[in-house]
Amino acid sequence: MRISFDTLQSEFKRVLLSLNFTDEKANLCANIFAENSRDGVASHGLNRFPVFVEFIKDALIDPDAEPTKQNGFGALEQWDGNLGPGMLNARFCMDRAIVLAAEHGIGCVALKNTNHWMRAGAYGWQAAEAGMIGICFTNTIANLPPWGGTEPRLGNNPLVIAVPREGGHVVLDMAISQYSVGKLNQYKNNKEQLPIAGGYNSAGELSTDPAEILESKRLLPVGFWKGSGLSMMLDLLATVLSEGNSTAKITKSGKEASNCQVFICIKPGNNLSVQQAIDEVIEYTKNSQVTDGGFVAYPGENTLRTREKSLKEGVLVDERIWEKVRAL
Amino acid sequence: MRISFDTLQSEFKRVLLSLNFTDEKANLCANIFAENSRDGVASHGLNRFPVFVEFIKDALIDPDAEPTKQNGFGALEQWDGNLGPGMLNARFCMDRAIVLAAEHGIGCVALKNTNHWMRAGAYGWQAAEAGMIGICFTNTIANLPPWGGTEPRLGNNPLVIAVPREGGHVVLDMAISQYSVGKLNQYKNNKEQLPIAGGYNSAGELSTDPAEILESKRLLPVGFWKGSGLSMMLDLLATVLSEGNSTAKITKSGKEASNCQVFICIKPGNNLSVQQAIDEVIEYTKNSQVTDGGFVAYPGENTLRTREKSLKEGVLVDERIWEKVRAL
Repeated sequence: MRISFDTLQSEFKRVLLSLNFTDEKANLCANIFAENSRDGVASHGLNRFPVFVEFIKDALIDPDAEPTKQNGFGALEQWDGNLGPGMLNARFCMDRAIVLAAEHGIGCVALKNTNHWMRAGAYGWQAAEAGMIGICFTNTIANLPPWGGTEPRLGNNPLVIAVPREGGHVVLDMAISQYSVGKLNQYKNNKEQLPIAGGYNSAGELSTDPAEILESKRLLPVGFWKGSGLSMMLDLLATVLSEGNSTAKITKSGKEASNCQVFICIKPGNNLSVQQAIDEVIEYTKNSQVTDGGFVAYPGENTLRTREKSLKEGVLVDERIWEKVRAL
Repeated sequence: MRISFDTLQSEFKRVLLSLNFTDEKANLCANIFAENSRDGVASHGLNRFPVFVEFIKDALIDPDAEPTKQNGFGALEQWDGNLGPGMLNARFCMDRAIVLAAEHGIGCVALKNTNHWMRAGAYGWQAAEAGMIGICFTNTIANLPPWGGTEPRLGNNPLVIAVPREGGHVVLDMAISQYSVGKLNQYKNNKEQLPIAGGYNSAGELSTDPAEILESKRLLPVGFWKGSGLSMMLDLLATVLSEGNSTAKITKSGKEASNCQVFICIKPGNNLSVQQAIDEVIEYTKNSQVTDGGFVAYPGENTLRTREKSLKEGVLVDERIWEKVRAL
């Protein structure tokens, strides 16, 4: 079922206003949720909205909290999210990083005591829209065993890299696990096998069965030992720079709240040759011979295609969840 | 066969002096090659030295060239490597990034027209030794097909992230291919299969046979589609920020020269709680239950162990290559 972007946005806003969000905050939050669904990431759009509402009702997220500055040193700043809505804190901090990069060429904002920012890529698009290179990442609760281990001790710590481009921004949005938990559940619910191994079963064998992997909790890091190392580095960067909670601390607390994030912006040259160089990289890559039925996409290309379709034909929604939200 | 670090270093220096390197440059280059072997990366230490000498003799690398500043905007600088020795350019630029981060909290140096920097991790260790968080990456000639494609159109663009730590720095040094070309050759020469799939054979099937993969040139990116996207982003960042040659341009030129690199440093808080947080992350991760015969290492841990052994018992060298260098 498809509904218009505006209908989706208004419905989110109505619910948030009923939870005593200010008009401005309700509007911004509703936008982000609607945009995430619009861009094809319903798992962090409509489908996640009821969970977000629960967190508000359980007072795990404070709608009135505003981020406060802890420290500033030139182009590097530390902010405290004060457990406010994760999307608002993230949007605010990426905006600060944009300002810092405009002043200093590069800027970095580290944020602690925040909450789930929903779709990581949203903040990459935000930077690119402002004409900035954007890099951001978050830590999470442990959901990934380290290489050589069998228990989740690392987060899948989504990483975003965005480069602004006139013909469509290039935006990579990747969790460090081969498949996100949401994706595994989706395959499981559809009773489908994964196209490639996504983890280990309880016997320690590589598996393409999403149910087996969810049961063993042994998701595979991208690139095996490499993703395991990369995940730890992203957590260390977030923890050290924000002086907030590491994946270890978040996991020990028992719930995924009060995590930390890093937002880096860099000001690219804006001459014609830079845009031409970006286009050359994309064209050269896409012009590879392809596999049977294969297609080479640049990061963000599919997002843009989904966005255009959503705006033209309406945003795809799960009817059951849409009715649930309307009843909130 | 093992020889002392000093013997190895002196031998490199002797050869470089004979190629008209200044004493200072010969010393620094010799150090880097010897340190790479000392840390267990002979593929970019002793084993690569004869190739480096060839490049000098063929005038592809200019020992007299010095990096020159192209642009500076606050904490962001562009430098031209003028085709000097890649390791010297890289060391210089990471030093600049360290200075910029000390001034501005964060600093970024983009370098164009440089040459192979040998071991990527060396510059992460350099930042960490200076008490800085270091992030750096390089583009390369195309050696990796994009996801959905069958021809090499992306580089494996090594990425380094380093966090300083009193008990041993945490340094991730990873190429974006699951196995480097050097590693594949090593397995092939030892007539061994890879522990996990490292690419596709010419029939398009995932393979653990290094010879098949080297023949098809279809190396696997880490995390399949994810590594493919990450590789493109690193190339775009390097190209856009330095305004130098992309992987596309380098590949079209036919030889891996005149590539570009990015060096970012960030100044971490130096209070006790930051060091304790790092230790907590490492301890929590290492305390996972392990697989049969498994061992959880933090990035850099094995490097440090190899380094200690090399300094105590001598650096492991391939006798045939050692004799070759002595005859240069």
